[in-house]
Amino acid sequence: MPTTAHKRRGLMFVLSSPSGAGKTTLSRRLLEMDTHLALSISVTTRPRRSNEMEGRDYHFISETRFQEMVRQNELLEHATVFDYHYGTPAKHVLDRLTSGTDVLFDIDWQGTRQLSRVAREDLVSVFILPPSMKELERRLRTRAQDSDEIVARRMSKATAEISHWQEYDYVLVNDDLEATTERVMCILQAERMKRPRRPQLESFIRSLK
Amino acid sequence: MPTTAHKRRGLMFVLSSPSGAGKTTLSRRLLEMDTHLALSISVTTRPRRSNEMEGRDYHFISETRFQEMVRQNELLEHATVFDYHYGTPAKHVLDRLTSGTDVLFDIDWQGTRQLSRVAREDLVSVFILPPSMKELERRLRTRAQDSDEIVARRMSKATAEISHWQEYDYVLVNDDLEATTERVMCILQAERMKRPRRPQLESFIRSLK
Repeated sequence: MPTTAHKRRGLMFVLSSPSGAGKTTLSRRLLEMDTHLALSISVTTRPRRSNEMEGRDYHFISETRFQEMVRQNELLEHATVFDYHYGTPAKHVLDRLTSGTDVLFDIDWQGTRQLSRVAREDLVSVFILPPSMKELERRLRTRAQDSDEIVARRMSKATAEISHWQEYDYVLVNDDLEATTERVMCILQAERMKRPRRPQLESFIRSLK
Repeated sequence: MPTTAHKRRGLMFVLSSPSGAGKTTLSRRLLEMDTHLALSISVTTRPRRSNEMEGRDYHFISETRFQEMVRQNELLEHATVFDYHYGTPAKHVLDRLTSGTDVLFDIDWQGTRQLSRVAREDLVSVFILPPSMKELERRLRTRAQDSDEIVARRMSKATAEISHWQEYDYVLVNDDLEATTERVMCILQAERMKRPRRPQLESFIRSLK
């Protein structure tokens, strides 16, 4: 029977940024490059956008189901943005962490703050900044489907989101997607080499003596 | 006049390993690859080996001078190994840290423990393990100039050194020099992206609003 005494527990890797700073593209690249990383799929009560897919981008659920999940303590964290609710289902995440898989979270500062309360040791948080507000607005406008009003709301939300940068472990400016992807990969790899996250080394080191 | 209020302070990057695990080669590669990194040159009372150069590998000093440096508090840390003394001159290191340059230390667990007492926030420590004791012995034997007795002493010293692995922030197994160099570079780059080490971001973030 295999022993699990020194089994490595996965880490919770949080990426936050204002909408348009490149976080979603970054997340997809990380997941493509790293097979030991799984995405935490949030639930949300907001309507699905045309480019989104159920179960890939979100689990789209009803207000009633969301409130039930909150009551049943099925969410690790939840937040409200522009009147819609978002949350992280606990079971999926905890199963992966226990099996040693790292889990990537694409969540905002509210979710990060709640996660850090339940998972301090396991959590690594990265904040991605846009190179400028002008560039952020340009990126939001090229998402053709958003109206002027929505872009203005998102810009104001972006400023609020950025004001929480000091709550994160790492902070990066996304001025180049390739370079930023590499930097985020580096952070993930470095965090995996931290001594408290390598319990499997104990038996290796015993074998050295 | 330039402001220094948000100037970045350099970090102290410690590499430790038993003799023969590849630490010195690794250090040289890091210094070649990274121009923001400077080596802390230790003083020692042991005789210079034929392949060593004064001021590159060590500052070779007399017992009298060493004792004077200890008395005058000129050393950040010092340790005794095989009856010879080793130490880190403080001034050189502190000048570099203040100017924002990161400093690499090629020191043992005794030195690391002392450094961590004076520089907790600024210190990042990495322990390099050999892939096996057999491989370590092979590497020590290929250093042609060491006698059987010295190799035996170094092997026993290696076991003692390895017993301190739990005092380090990161632990790596050097089974492949290229891969290990990349991993150590990743750790250094990730540590530089830690939020408390990026005071210069404060003015950038003010400019975003």
